[in-house]
Amino acid sequence: MTRVQTERIRSWWGWGWADAAVTGTERAELLARLPPHWVDEQLPVPRIADLDLRAPRVSPPDSLAPICTVHPHVRAAHTYGKAYRDVIRALHGDLGAAPDVVAYPESETHVTALLDWAGDTNVAVIPYGGGSSVVGGVEYRADRHRGVLSLDLTRMNRVLEVDRTSRAALIEAGALGPVLEEQLAPHGYTLRHFPQSFEFSTLGGWLATRAGGHFAMRHTHIDDFVEALRVVGPTGTSESRRLPASGAGPSPDRLFLGSEGALGVITRAWLRVQDRPVHKASRGVSFPDFPTGLAAVRAIAQSGLEPSNCRLLDEAEAAINTGRADGRAVLVLGFESADHPVDTALVRALDISQDHGGSVDSTSTQDSVGGWRAAFLRMPYVRDALARSGVLVETFETACTWDTAVAVCETVRERVRAATAEVCGETGIVTARVTHVYPDGVAPYFTVIAPSKRGREVRMWDEIKAVASDVLSGLGASITHHHAVGRDHFRWYEAQRPDQFGKVLWLAKNYLDPQGILNPGVLFD
Amino acid sequence: MTRVQTERIRSWWGWGWADAAVTGTERAELLARLPPHWVDEQLPVPRIADLDLRAPRVSPPDSLAPICTVHPHVRAAHTYGKAYRDVIRALHGDLGAAPDVVAYPESETHVTALLDWAGDTNVAVIPYGGGSSVVGGVEYRADRHRGVLSLDLTRMNRVLEVDRTSRAALIEAGALGPVLEEQLAPHGYTLRHFPQSFEFSTLGGWLATRAGGHFAMRHTHIDDFVEALRVVGPTGTSESRRLPASGAGPSPDRLFLGSEGALGVITRAWLRVQDRPVHKASRGVSFPDFPTGLAAVRAIAQSGLEPSNCRLLDEAEAAINTGRADGRAVLVLGFESADHPVDTALVRALDISQDHGGSVDSTSTQDSVGGWRAAFLRMPYVRDALARSGVLVETFETACTWDTAVAVCETVRERVRAATAEVCGETGIVTARVTHVYPDGVAPYFTVIAPSKRGREVRMWDEIKAVASDVLSGLGASITHHHAVGRDHFRWYEAQRPDQFGKVLWLAKNYLDPQGILNPGVLFD
Repeated sequence: MTRVQTERIRSWWGWGWADAAVTGTERAELLARLPPHWVDEQLPVPRIADLDLRAPRVSPPDSLAPICTVHPHVRAAHTYGKAYRDVIRALHGDLGAAPDVVAYPESETHVTALLDWAGDTNVAVIPYGGGSSVVGGVEYRADRHRGVLSLDLTRMNRVLEVDRTSRAALIEAGALGPVLEEQLAPHGYTLRHFPQSFEFSTLGGWLATRAGGHFAMRHTHIDDFVEALRVVGPTGTSESRRLPASGAGPSPDRLFLGSEGALGVITRAWLRVQDRPVHKASRGVSFPDFPTGLAAVRAIAQSGLEPSNCRLLDEAEAAINTGRADGRAVLVLGFESADHPVDTALVRALDISQDHGGSVDSTSTQDSVGGWRAAFLRMPYVRDALARSGVLVETFETACTWDTAVAVCETVRERVRAATAEVCGETGIVTARVTHVYPDGVAPYFTVIAPSKRGREVRMWDEIKAVASDVLSGLGASITHHHAVGRDHFRWYEAQRPDQFGKVLWLAKNYLDPQGILNPGVLFD
Repeated sequence: MTRVQTERIRSWWGWGWADAAVTGTERAELLARLPPHWVDEQLPVPRIADLDLRAPRVSPPDSLAPICTVHPHVRAAHTYGKAYRDVIRALHGDLGAAPDVVAYPESETHVTALLDWAGDTNVAVIPYGGGSSVVGGVEYRADRHRGVLSLDLTRMNRVLEVDRTSRAALIEAGALGPVLEEQLAPHGYTLRHFPQSFEFSTLGGWLATRAGGHFAMRHTHIDDFVEALRVVGPTGTSESRRLPASGAGPSPDRLFLGSEGALGVITRAWLRVQDRPVHKASRGVSFPDFPTGLAAVRAIAQSGLEPSNCRLLDEAEAAINTGRADGRAVLVLGFESADHPVDTALVRALDISQDHGGSVDSTSTQDSVGGWRAAFLRMPYVRDALARSGVLVETFETACTWDTAVAVCETVRERVRAATAEVCGETGIVTARVTHVYPDGVAPYFTVIAPSKRGREVRMWDEIKAVASDVLSGLGASITHHHAVGRDHFRWYEAQRPDQFGKVLWLAKNYLDPQGILNPGVLFD
């Protein structure tokens, strides 16, 4: 079951597979598309031997030694998530936050033993799935622990049980996306949760961060698939009953969904799975501008049609992602079903699009959807290549109700362009797209590409990001729709979270993690 | 805006409008359908003057007097919910639990002032919406308070704001179903949340109990419509941000959804509203037996078609509710949309039904759906008439995954028949229907009709209900899908709730309600 993980080597400093990094012609073509003065000499990847990692300050007892490692490569790879600022710091060899030990538990017994040891010795424990956080979710930033343990759960990766009648599966939290899909496939099932990080993120990570898949409606967050959770913590194990729905008091699972490793270690969950879709229909629609497209998307979102894809790209995104240079915004609409044809639904959604000023492409977008998906999955590798070459590239996202959607999109683009101009010396490229839609609102997603100054990249991005976050907060939008809070969003999350709820969460933290060893700095200051 | 409430008088002892009680010919026909020896002389409704309510032990300060009453009729009407055991106790004049004072706050300022007074004087506060609880949700059973205040929120019943762009509305929690629908109608909107108690329950009550509407899929619980909540408690006010979705930490709203008045008083909420459906299609299907029908329902639930109605009645339910006497189980399938025709979806669902052994009725069920709905809303009045005439009538419900659905339905019917035989001297009538369906499970709903013994009705029902609850618990089903926990379900709820979550909830309770005045006995022992 670990075939997927072991055949290839993961990059310790950047995204994905080491051998999939953008190089050669691909890199040259990529850089050629940017203003030449943005492009710097390529940052070399430091040699692990040169990293000069601090010697481990703690070491686990002999009984745990077989599942632990202090190998510098592994410690380096577990230091950060995969944000732009993480990649930059890794490339600069700035790995002061490296964990002292990385553990690979193979059972809940191992997890409990590791937590016991950590509690006894005041070692911080950072639950680690695929390490794809882009918000500082797996990075130790506190200074009140004797050491730091990265708890890598990827060896707990089995589909333990499949209930064909209820169409549900009990899956261990450390299963990476492809690992769990590979085990569901023989049953004809799929979880159908495909975040951009799919290959390099785990079920447990998705649950702990309320991850968003790539479908635009219906099942947007992993939350929607949860029947029951099992969570192991320093003071015991919590397990909820498998239920399709319940009205029995506040939902127990909702306490742990989004808890980001701060309240316990999610070890397994019963998830609703689905039959693989066989009916598909999709088409592109273009609009004179982004607000016109947004109005069409809103009408579709409020129609009850529930497209699986409803991805609106602004003019700049469309140009970058589809190659079209006509200055139009582009909507990719798609429907899928395992049971029945979806052509009628697509026709109706296209009618609505046309009623709202859209021009429907003459041919099916099946090919372009495939192309788009490949580009989508390739994007983080591209980001790494650009980062190495002196280009600042990062994304952020939000959710807001429809009444503020245009203001959020336009204000963010405008203010972030201004911030980028101030910080980077020129406005760069700031684009918007819509990734998820709801009857009452939308999740916009923004990308910033601009020239950076070597050595100042992290500070530059942090300044731009703070402006973006302030705009979102000021307009009442969420600090995140699906990237989670981590450490980077804490300030704005705290402003967004009702104070009384924050206090209740803190009481939960103190009870569930009395020694304060679980992912310190996440959800709480 | 209070027209709906003030034109007619509510029954203080039973369901609904006093003038809508079952009498005369309707009553005679109803009783004629039962074995004559089940029917007792009709219990008279006690005169309020004869009730001999305990004198109020506390009285609010002068500043609150204008919004408070100690009128015996009002106190009597606020003593219990509307379960069988509540009606029986009221008819027997057993009103020892009557609140000392009933308050009708008209603003959050009033709510806060009432909570302050209650906290200062150790008075229990029972938030009260429509009073339709069937699980002891609004009944004081503790003995450690100086008095009891029933906090009737129905004067806080306005739709404060409608956001047409986001299709959402800010609604005060005390609005009864018809009161809020009447205010949404001029905008062309509906909340489309129609529990059986619709006329006599409030938005706040729905939110606090995670109420279920009558639609079978998609939007089953009120939870699904919540954008943001505002909750006033003894230690302050909690207000969440309006968002269509969020990934920013554990959901704050989910702490209060299902909190049953024990953690705070929900005063207003932003709710997703909908356009009124104009496309409808429905049809009846019959099956040789209930398990065959269940298999068809499961296939439909897993098809992604999402019917608005998918109500399966077992043989006995079908006979009682539709008059058919062919011993077949009946499924009523319906689709609705405000945007597009739904005939294709119905045809596909009927195909699936036929593939699973169903016989499709030759004509549309539009008429029978209307008739069924009228009977559905009439049911509580019928229950009251039967209760007055010596017949034990009560319902209970659950949710379970599909793998246990047949076992739950069959075991419950079998064990409850046995319990009824033991308690009542004969098996009576025990029926099952399916009210809500999910891809991974189902919500079965049971009705018990049997002869009772005057003066022992409550104990008889409690014994039967305990057997039913033990069966549900033993099979891993929920103690409730949409009737809430109240006080009657506490024992089984506590067994179902993960211990660690129970402890966290208790910490929340101690923080949010440090004096323990909010609905004592609910969610916590």
